[in-house]
Amino acid sequence: MKVKAVYIKDIKPGEKVSESFLVTEKNLAFSQRGAPYLNIRLKDKTGEVEGKIWENAIEWDKVFKKGDVIQAQGGAVSFKSTIQITITGLRKVEDADVSLAEYLPVAKEGIDEMFADLMTFIEQIQTPYLKALLHGFFHDEKITAMFKKAPAAKGFHHVYIGGLLEHTLSVIRLLDQLTHHYQGINRDLLITGGILHDIGKIYEYSYDSIFDYSDQGRLVGHIVIGIEMLDAKIASIGDFPEYVAMELRHLMLSHHGTYEFGSPKRPKTLEALIVHHIDDLDAKVNAFQEFIEDSRNDDSHWTPFHKLFERFIYKG
Amino acid sequence: MKVKAVYIKDIKPGEKVSESFLVTEKNLAFSQRGAPYLNIRLKDKTGEVEGKIWENAIEWDKVFKKGDVIQAQGGAVSFKSTIQITITGLRKVEDADVSLAEYLPVAKEGIDEMFADLMTFIEQIQTPYLKALLHGFFHDEKITAMFKKAPAAKGFHHVYIGGLLEHTLSVIRLLDQLTHHYQGINRDLLITGGILHDIGKIYEYSYDSIFDYSDQGRLVGHIVIGIEMLDAKIASIGDFPEYVAMELRHLMLSHHGTYEFGSPKRPKTLEALIVHHIDDLDAKVNAFQEFIEDSRNDDSHWTPFHKLFERFIYKG
Amino acid sequence: MKVKAVYIKDIKPGEKVSESFLVTEKNLAFSQRGAPYLNIRLKDKTGEVEGKIWENAIEWDKVFKKGDVIQAQGGAVSFKSTIQITITGLRKVEDADVSLAEYLPVAKEGIDEMFADLMTFIEQIQTPYLKALLHGFFHDEKITAMFKKAPAAKGFHHVYIGGLLEHTLSVIRLLDQLTHHYQGINRDLLITGGILHDIGKIYEYSYDSIFDYSDQGRLVGHIVIGIEMLDAKIASIGDFPEYVAMELRHLMLSHHGTYEFGSPKRPKTLEALIVHHIDDLDAKVNAFQEFIEDSRNDDSHWTPFHKLFERFIYKG
Amino acid sequence: MKVKAVYIKDIKPGEKVSESFLVTEKNLAFSQRGAPYLNIRLKDKTGEVEGKIWENAIEWDKVFKKGDVIQAQGGAVSFKSTIQITITGLRKVEDADVSLAEYLPVAKEGIDEMFADLMTFIEQIQTPYLKALLHGFFHDEKITAMFKKAPAAKGFHHVYIGGLLEHTLSVIRLLDQLTHHYQGINRDLLITGGILHDIGKIYEYSYDSIFDYSDQGRLVGHIVIGIEMLDAKIASIGDFPEYVAMELRHLMLSHHGTYEFGSPKRPKTLEALIVHHIDDLDAKVNAFQEFIEDSRNDDSHWTPFHKLFERFIYKG
Amino acid sequence: MKVKAVYIKDIKPGEKVSESFLVTEKNLAFSQRGAPYLNIRLKDKTGEVEGKIWENAIEWDKVFKKGDVIQAQGGAVSFKSTIQITITGLRKVEDADVSLAEYLPVAKEGIDEMFADLMTFIEQIQTPYLKALLHGFFHDEKITAMFKKAPAAKGFHHVYIGGLLEHTLSVIRLLDQLTHHYQGINRDLLITGGILHDIGKIYEYSYDSIFDYSDQGRLVGHIVIGIEMLDAKIASIGDFPEYVAMELRHLMLSHHGTYEFGSPKRPKTLEALIVHHIDDLDAKVNAFQEFIEDSRNDDSHWTPFHKLFERFIYKG
Amino acid sequence: MKVKAVYIKDIKPGEKVSESFLVTEKNLAFSQRGAPYLNIRLKDKTGEVEGKIWENAIEWDKVFKKGDVIQAQGGAVSFKSTIQITITGLRKVEDADVSLAEYLPVAKEGIDEMFADLMTFIEQIQTPYLKALLHGFFHDEKITAMFKKAPAAKGFHHVYIGGLLEHTLSVIRLLDQLTHHYQGINRDLLITGGILHDIGKIYEYSYDSIFDYSDQGRLVGHIVIGIEMLDAKIASIGDFPEYVAMELRHLMLSHHGTYEFGSPKRPKTLEALIVHHIDDLDAKVNAFQEFIEDSRNDDSHWTPFHKLFERFIYKG
Repeated sequence: MKVKAVYIKDIKPGEKVSESFLVTEKNLAFSQRGAPYLNIRLKDKTGEVEGKIWENAIEWDKVFKKGDVIQAQGGAVSFKSTIQITITGLRKVEDADVSLAEYLPVAKEGIDEMFADLMTFIEQIQTPYLKALLHGFFHDEKITAMFKKAPAAKGFHHVYIGGLLEHTLSVIRLLDQLTHHYQGINRDLLITGGILHDIGKIYEYSYDSIFDYSDQGRLVGHIVIGIEMLDAKIASIGDFPEYVAMELRHLMLSHHGTYEFGSPKRPKTLEALIVHHIDDLDAKVNAFQEFIEDSRNDDSHWTPFHKLFERFIYKG
Repeated sequence: MKVKAVYIKDIKPGEKVSESFLVTEKNLAFSQRGAPYLNIRLKDKTGEVEGKIWENAIEWDKVFKKGDVIQAQGGAVSFKSTIQITITGLRKVEDADVSLAEYLPVAKEGIDEMFADLMTFIEQIQTPYLKALLHGFFHDEKITAMFKKAPAAKGFHHVYIGGLLEHTLSVIRLLDQLTHHYQGINRDLLITGGILHDIGKIYEYSYDSIFDYSDQGRLVGHIVIGIEMLDAKIASIGDFPEYVAMELRHLMLSHHGTYEFGSPKRPKTLEALIVHHIDDLDAKVNAFQEFIEDSRNDDSHWTPFHKLFERFIYKG
Repeated sequence: MKVKAVYIKDIKPGEKVSESFLVTEKNLAFSQRGAPYLNIRLKDKTGEVEGKIWENAIEWDKVFKKGDVIQAQGGAVSFKSTIQITITGLRKVEDADVSLAEYLPVAKEGIDEMFADLMTFIEQIQTPYLKALLHGFFHDEKITAMFKKAPAAKGFHHVYIGGLLEHTLSVIRLLDQLTHHYQGINRDLLITGGILHDIGKIYEYSYDSIFDYSDQGRLVGHIVIGIEMLDAKIASIGDFPEYVAMELRHLMLSHHGTYEFGSPKRPKTLEALIVHHIDDLDAKVNAFQEFIEDSRNDDSHWTPFHKLFERFIYKG
Repeated sequence: MKVKAVYIKDIKPGEKVSESFLVTEKNLAFSQRGAPYLNIRLKDKTGEVEGKIWENAIEWDKVFKKGDVIQAQGGAVSFKSTIQITITGLRKVEDADVSLAEYLPVAKEGIDEMFADLMTFIEQIQTPYLKALLHGFFHDEKITAMFKKAPAAKGFHHVYIGGLLEHTLSVIRLLDQLTHHYQGINRDLLITGGILHDIGKIYEYSYDSIFDYSDQGRLVGHIVIGIEMLDAKIASIGDFPEYVAMELRHLMLSHHGTYEFGSPKRPKTLEALIVHHIDDLDAKVNAFQEFIEDSRNDDSHWTPFHKLFERFIYKG
Repeated sequence: MKVKAVYIKDIKPGEKVSESFLVTEKNLAFSQRGAPYLNIRLKDKTGEVEGKIWENAIEWDKVFKKGDVIQAQGGAVSFKSTIQITITGLRKVEDADVSLAEYLPVAKEGIDEMFADLMTFIEQIQTPYLKALLHGFFHDEKITAMFKKAPAAKGFHHVYIGGLLEHTLSVIRLLDQLTHHYQGINRDLLITGGILHDIGKIYEYSYDSIFDYSDQGRLVGHIVIGIEMLDAKIASIGDFPEYVAMELRHLMLSHHGTYEFGSPKRPKTLEALIVHHIDDLDAKVNAFQEFIEDSRNDDSHWTPFHKLFERFIYKG
Repeated sequence: MKVKAVYIKDIKPGEKVSESFLVTEKNLAFSQRGAPYLNIRLKDKTGEVEGKIWENAIEWDKVFKKGDVIQAQGGAVSFKSTIQITITGLRKVEDADVSLAEYLPVAKEGIDEMFADLMTFIEQIQTPYLKALLHGFFHDEKITAMFKKAPAAKGFHHVYIGGLLEHTLSVIRLLDQLTHHYQGINRDLLITGGILHDIGKIYEYSYDSIFDYSDQGRLVGHIVIGIEMLDAKIASIGDFPEYVAMELRHLMLSHHGTYEFGSPKRPKTLEALIVHHIDDLDAKVNAFQEFIEDSRNDDSHWTPFHKLFERFIYKG
């Protein structure tokens, strides 16, 4: 397994570089005199950096593709707060030698700790068939492995390995508090719904190297994929009350809150209403936090313009 | 079985009435002196008419409820083009004695003929697993029985027994023509998608007496119910290609065309695009035709205001 | 002070009635023969009921107006689950003799207990000038008296005496939990913002008898009234940091989240984002709960249609 | 007349090029040392290609302008799937020597064959004044010449010489089928409306070289231009029933279906409703087909992002 | 000619009534015992009043229809600020005997004076072909007669005989001031556009008795009707510069400002921009003024809720 | 004080340049061989021009920053209608030596003349407390100094020193005319509202060098800042009628007309309605005029695409 010695966040201008990186973008460009060169983008778990290959671009272009990990030689140049790496030699690292954990950002809290917390919530469920349902999901090794790894989105919030788990856990911790705060809530339904609301995302994205949508992510989407997974698990445990299944389906279908955001139904139960709001809150708080974090070194009270929020965010 | 001798469309003012009707609305109202009376709405397969019970309203109110068929005595009074029936006596008809076909509007074309046409389309499917899938649906007696009976909507278009079948057949006839008209279409996928696009509606409505939404209609909706039915049938036939299943799910999910109309995905394949447009066209043409038909006797070039279309329609 | 012996929720059909009520609607209507009668609506803290005055309507009409409390004699008539009171005699109760607490709905939790909890939160504020600011508001007797009494809305959520206090307390309890849950939050700013976000509502409504908008409620609105109140209090304490004042103004201005809901700015700080979401959640949960409660006796799984939510709500 | 020997789709990297092309874009750019160069875009009926002029850019810039056909010498360079032509010498081809058919994309089906089919539809019209009206249009040589040439849009669908004719013919073939499918349709009105719905487009665009909007296209638009053309033709034939003219105007005005898409009236007749839907279907199917065709060589299941549809399209 | 002696605004409760009125609504209703009665609405130039016919309603119903003028006998009854007329006898007044000026509201300023002012503006136009165009319109007796009579809308603003003239004159007076205020405006184009912007409204409404939309008003609309009228007049004067015609068409087409309000083009010239804004201002000011005037006697600071403005208006 | 000898609009290609400019943008870029260079944008009161620093970019980059005025040596190069300045030497001009009037665009009409006109309007106010209020604002030296200098927007309309004053004066001149044109207007309220409607903009922008939003501009915005300024002035004069203050607040709050454009209330008084419309008209006319002016030298009938208006504008 390839282990990194130097991480992007530590590279200084003027240093020589001989290290491995994940390539997240690669484009052949064209100088004024017809000389081709390569613009690439390099990533590891600590950040991203631009790279350039000025010489023999056509040849190097054939050696690797977007999504590969490369071992590159070159030098870091700098202007202002930005570093750029001029690459003079490279080789593709074989997939078998790649430990993705070195190249992809990862949740701050430990994945196993978070998963253990999630399991504790599951064990607290009182309703037998809901606990059985959750066991159906989280005693399933394939689902569990993917669930520990998937990001919660491609670019908006919790965009890192373990992001889906972190987001889910954050949501159910908040839901748990709300069950003490509001009356008339079906706690087990609410927590189960919170745990499963985004479960379809494990198939919505590809996250073995660069994060992207899968084909079924684009054609079907995590909301409906989640319902299909739910139905399969319900079928496998038997004697699951139909009315509870219907409420759970409703909660999952409506968790985006409005048609405009892709929910085919809007929340019509108290539990569905609450899961929608807490999911929305948690996603947006994380998106604000990460965006503020990304620009923490700029000497401005404001972040750059955030395209999805359509605003500048005030850092204070 | 109760057989009707007189139908609503034939009742003339001044006539005595002794006939059975389905009660679609019932409200106890209140005259100026505190005297209660009943406003009811009566229906049979030929139309609807207002009714009034002036005497002993409290007592009569306990005898029947909305959705019942009653055998009523009274007289028809009239003003302008509207008839109203003053009821002086009645009894509830037992459900066992009711032939709903007498009380609910029904498709103009024969249901069995339409179903036979649908089966012919199914037999023309060349792709074995798609044909197997459709057999899975239409050799299922429960589904078939419901599919022959369900309306295509609660109030917008094809609102009659057999309406879903009529709409489905109309859509696939049009789709069939388009496969000759445009290039690059996967005919079998298109026709299969056309047949199944609204299949979830058999569970979205209740239509044993008054048409209404079912609980799962409101909580889950026909789009996702349809996907669940599809998944169940695919599971039962085995060896169904996953990529075809995904395209079929996409087509069904996106057939409302936009998020605003409840589709969690918008059409991204040629076949999904076409099914959406033909479904929309067929629903709206039927809605125009029925609305024009309903006001054919008014001496105006225009229908009354149509709330969903937000316009008056020109009858010419 | 007028004390009631009988409450609306306890009146049975057939009983004689001699009791005081708040009149929330009064309309002179017209029978077929030109005989006028009065439609009125009566209210006490337990509910509302329709009333009719059949005799001498013109004369009675002059005796009282909408918003008055009347002492009425008459009898309760009934049909189905609805009671109606036929009034044969009445007199206006002088304002001085009216204890509004008998006639208006009131928060379930005790107002003084809730206010004490609010004050506890204020005492926990660490930042001196924020604590001073809150003292400026809640040591102001006029503001405090109004704040304990105001509803949180005219018709959507927390529509009862003490509703604003209950909503505010619920919001800050939730905000308090979030300060433990998320990192990077300015707790004192968040709690202060939560306490003050709706403060302008004490002047937006009139709630001495029937709840309605005040003139400044319609012309200026609680968001800007709140800013004006804030500025006045800040001016009175001196040495309040301008940048904190600006963030607090921003939080209050943006708490409706979007332009469409009347915020002239959208949330651009983490604290403003969170207050908006928790305010929205708390309002909607209360609206769902109250609407479900209002129809708890109907034998349907569904509430009536909710106009603001544009949906039926599932009671389970 | 200039005849081409080599077409863009056949140019291979490394080849010398001496051929004529239509210039669709021309921009003077600026290298780091102040050296100007020309970015141009070249087109013929088989496709488009980028070009560069590195030497003497200022002088060459004066020799030709956007929209000209030039005879260019140079060489093809390549990277990945893209070709670029480095031009070292050129001359403008005089307009008189240009056969535009060589430089602009053209409908796949023969224009004369399509026009003959259109005329067949016209001859089948039974209503004398509608047939006379259509003769008024299509026996008018100027209109006919333009109608055979115009594209159906500037960039969305049927963007090629003969595109308007192809789209119109496709629409009326579909309308013809619908007259057999639905009841209550005025066939002659429907077909006439289908033929004329986009007639104003012959003046909305300029298409003598590069496709663009005309001044009246931007200021008046094809919908209203079409009405003006209709009125002129109606005036010239006399005795045209006013009520039919009004329905025809309505159909043409409302064929975009909604205000948002520039129709000043929404469809209020069955025929107007149908023409709108079929027009929309045909435009979108063509846009999907062309966009899929344009990316047929990419090794992805998906097209690039389509800006107007705001989605990726699945190629399967 | 029928001349009225008593006007609606002067009728007092308790008086006997023997006078002529325009019937603007007529509905046969139904008492509790099946006795029919007529609800009607009566109008003259000073206002409107409800009427009731209790006896022999079926017979009276055949004597007159909505839109007729009737000579009625009866008595005025009253409650609060509303008068109602109980009719005991009536006869239809023959159309030949009706002077509509007695029954329809009319502009406050004299129609002939306003028209003279309009003609003065026309005479000030310097550009010969624009002046010729306006003469073409306003020396046309049919157009002039209709233009003096038409309202400017069916229900929103200037809803009275002469309303279109009053609105047009108000708009051009304001436009005239703007030509002194802003630079770069083509005055003659602006004034001509202002005069003609709503000219199509003379055919959009029927206003011989009750104001309503005409068939072409609903199917074509005043914007496009106006263009057709313009084209006809331009054709008749010859040598009208095509570019000016195009700008004038654009101004008229775009005067509603946005697609949503039915303009097929949005303003793209300075003159079109200005006419749109002044037209909008003048319509809304009039609508506010009239709505405030209508509720001037209510003892509230606020008007009733205005449905189109979706707000209450503050009267001060 | 630095006085300029040469202005940007007069610089010709091929000339040597030794002159001072305001730097409005500065970005370090990167040539193909890793050589950094500076892209800058230079401005004076007559226009803007691109600049390049090819040599020693890293060093020069430290000498000045965006917003500085620099004294630069170099030469003008040109292509087509665009000039670019290649800079070979420069020094920062000390702030104390900078007369901003040389570097920022300024209103065409003289600022002192416009301000005198504004004061004349103020002196014509009859209502004592409104005149006192306006004196409170315009006898305040700090406010006056800022008001004479502020632009009316960052990029849309009146984007120049004195722009806010020019816009305000234009609006009140138009309002003054409307008081003669319409009845029922409170002239003093209208003029006062017109003068103050945008007063908060003096704190919404920074305009000491480059125009930008201030922190409070983004967090609070000119609408609410204006209310706060109003409240402060009202507090200082005493005895200001509360109902007038409320109407004035309403007018200022609602002057953007709709929620979507950031007004927390929509106009509910005649005066608020009128100020909104005239403000909107004046802003858009200025935006059209300036945009047309900016492209007056292009040989097209059309301006470039205007992003906010989402259209091309016709220059005629």
